[in-house]
Amino acid sequence: MASRSRSNPNRRITIRDVAAAAGVTPMTVSNVLNRRAGEVGRETQDRVIEVCRQLGYKPHASARRLRTDRRMAVGLVIVDPSPNYLSDPFIAALFAGLTDCLGPQGYSLVLHGSHPDGVGAIPLLQQIETDALCAVLSGSLRQRRAFMRRLAEARQPLVLLQEEHSELVGGLAGDDVCTVVQDDRGGGVAIAQHLLTGSCQHIVMLVPEIEWSAMVRREAGLRAVLSRARPRRTLRILPCGDEGYVATQAALAAYVARHGLPDTVVGGNDQMAIAAMKFFQARGLVVPRDIRVTGFNGFEVWRYSSPELTTVFSPAYDMGRNAGQAILARLQNGRFPFREQVLSVTLQANGSS
Amino acid sequence: MASRSRSNPNRRITIRDVAAAAGVTPMTVSNVLNRRAGEVGRETQDRVIEVCRQLGYKPHASARRLRTDRRMAVGLVIVDPSPNYLSDPFIAALFAGLTDCLGPQGYSLVLHGSHPDGVGAIPLLQQIETDALCAVLSGSLRQRRAFMRRLAEARQPLVLLQEEHSELVGGLAGDDVCTVVQDDRGGGVAIAQHLLTGSCQHIVMLVPEIEWSAMVRREAGLRAVLSRARPRRTLRILPCGDEGYVATQAALAAYVARHGLPDTVVGGNDQMAIAAMKFFQARGLVVPRDIRVTGFNGFEVWRYSSPELTTVFSPAYDMGRNAGQAILARLQNGRFPFREQVLSVTLQANGSS
Repeated sequence: MASRSRSNPNRRITIRDVAAAAGVTPMTVSNVLNRRAGEVGRETQDRVIEVCRQLGYKPHASARRLRTDRRMAVGLVIVDPSPNYLSDPFIAALFAGLTDCLGPQGYSLVLHGSHPDGVGAIPLLQQIETDALCAVLSGSLRQRRAFMRRLAEARQPLVLLQEEHSELVGGLAGDDVCTVVQDDRGGGVAIAQHLLTGSCQHIVMLVPEIEWSAMVRREAGLRAVLSRARPRRTLRILPCGDEGYVATQAALAAYVARHGLPDTVVGGNDQMAIAAMKFFQARGLVVPRDIRVTGFNGFEVWRYSSPELTTVFSPAYDMGRNAGQAILARLQNGRFPFREQVLSVTLQANGSS
Repeated sequence: MASRSRSNPNRRITIRDVAAAAGVTPMTVSNVLNRRAGEVGRETQDRVIEVCRQLGYKPHASARRLRTDRRMAVGLVIVDPSPNYLSDPFIAALFAGLTDCLGPQGYSLVLHGSHPDGVGAIPLLQQIETDALCAVLSGSLRQRRAFMRRLAEARQPLVLLQEEHSELVGGLAGDDVCTVVQDDRGGGVAIAQHLLTGSCQHIVMLVPEIEWSAMVRREAGLRAVLSRARPRRTLRILPCGDEGYVATQAALAAYVARHGLPDTVVGGNDQMAIAAMKFFQARGLVVPRDIRVTGFNGFEVWRYSSPELTTVFSPAYDMGRNAGQAILARLQNGRFPFREQVLSVTLQANGSS
């Protein structure tokens, strides 16, 4: 059969060729390819797919979709000024969870990166090719709300990741939105409680220059505990540019020149925390004796530093998987199974604090 | 205008509505949306897009594509047994380069993960929705060749990343394939030459369990230099499971029990190198006095360890960007601008060796 397609490469293989070669009707081939699989036995399915492969049959997907109106694709919109957003382990773990859930169901993921000013949403708007959207937003609440309005124009089921339903969705969109979020505020509370078991007078929290609502919630949790602590503690928030190694150390150098040495560094994520640890170690300070350091997220790199980093483990993979399950349920039943899902985080104290 | 669409949400907005609101002809709207932009002035383009946005106009992309036959999407196929493949900084940097090149041209990226056995290629085969493909393959040469044949069935322009044209493409596919690869063999040569400037008798190279042609080339470069060195050096290759921290340390524990302590560890990547460094440090050895350690790739984490890791910097971002440029040229001119492109790598000696 393969030789037949090779001997006449210019003739387009049709569904009838596939049907004849597989010994089934064209309708059966169509059922298999359009995933009306319940109507076709497993062996026949396998045979049809194998014949499609051997003949190099390319179903005219665009035409097929005009009939089925199912694109078998989910869009993942990530609003981040850095083109390197995928190298953030949080985004990568979210993505892995989504892929693991949706891939086996035959869905592809279509990635759209966008700057917070929303310019990147224009191709998305023009070329909507997905059955549902997931989004991870950054920027101020005003920017995120504006972006939400543009997403709503796509009129697709939408899962917002790392946003609180009440803050961002309320009033702006209909029922076809749900949120999956980790308990970042609880993580901030856990870090503060842990720090208060030891000495901490002068605390600096490292955050990216751009606003992420998750970072705001981590800070809120930290403040909620520290504001009730006596004696009073100093807590300052230090923006660290693109949150990379070099930018973080530059921000710390400027901070120390102005405010003196802190005794505690709360990294908004593990990468900034490790950059801070190396910064102070290079200046002869001993962690945790002279300076305590904590991170956030717990993806592998917490083990890379010496001493290992106290961190809060993020369920990012589970968030991605749960978002995928919510989408599958929505596409099957016409509604999301929940409005908001909040996943727990866990602090692990290690040698750095 | 926005209120009009809200007041009658069930009526579908047509291209005529957009044209009327923007004060242009439907043909002009079509030209803008189909990116025949040269025929329309910049101000008009912006006005049409703004009106589309305000009215919530959703062009029927499937129908449009039947006419234009351009999908404005590029597929990225990554063959890796781990669902976490995106968290690998090499893949993330490739992806960032591709996105930076293709995104501004209006292309989306569609991601397909697949296991080396190729089962995951079936949805890809059934649902070809892209103008071109990029692929990063893993597995044995036999597995990669089998996967190549399946990719060729998609009959799309194909850029293979981190493969040598002569090894994988020759004879298997037509002219519509090009490769973009970094000089991993040269990186292996540079590491061996660096190691020979100091003491190294018993060398172990850490590699992932699954075969990647890049790792094979790194090993070949290392061997080419060491095989000519006198006195003779011992070089053993140690597979480290999923190349994660825990698997790498477990493999090293078994290795040391059987072969004794090496004096040099060559990490196939930085992550395995750091896991090895921490393994030996935890056993009281001093790096580099008692044991020298090198990595490969140079993405940020080389700075996280103490001492910092000697590594080979990968041009992964440039590879992704160049692959994207090759695709754009291919789609415009009908042929790839090159058959193979080999990018240089650079060794940086740091405190670990």
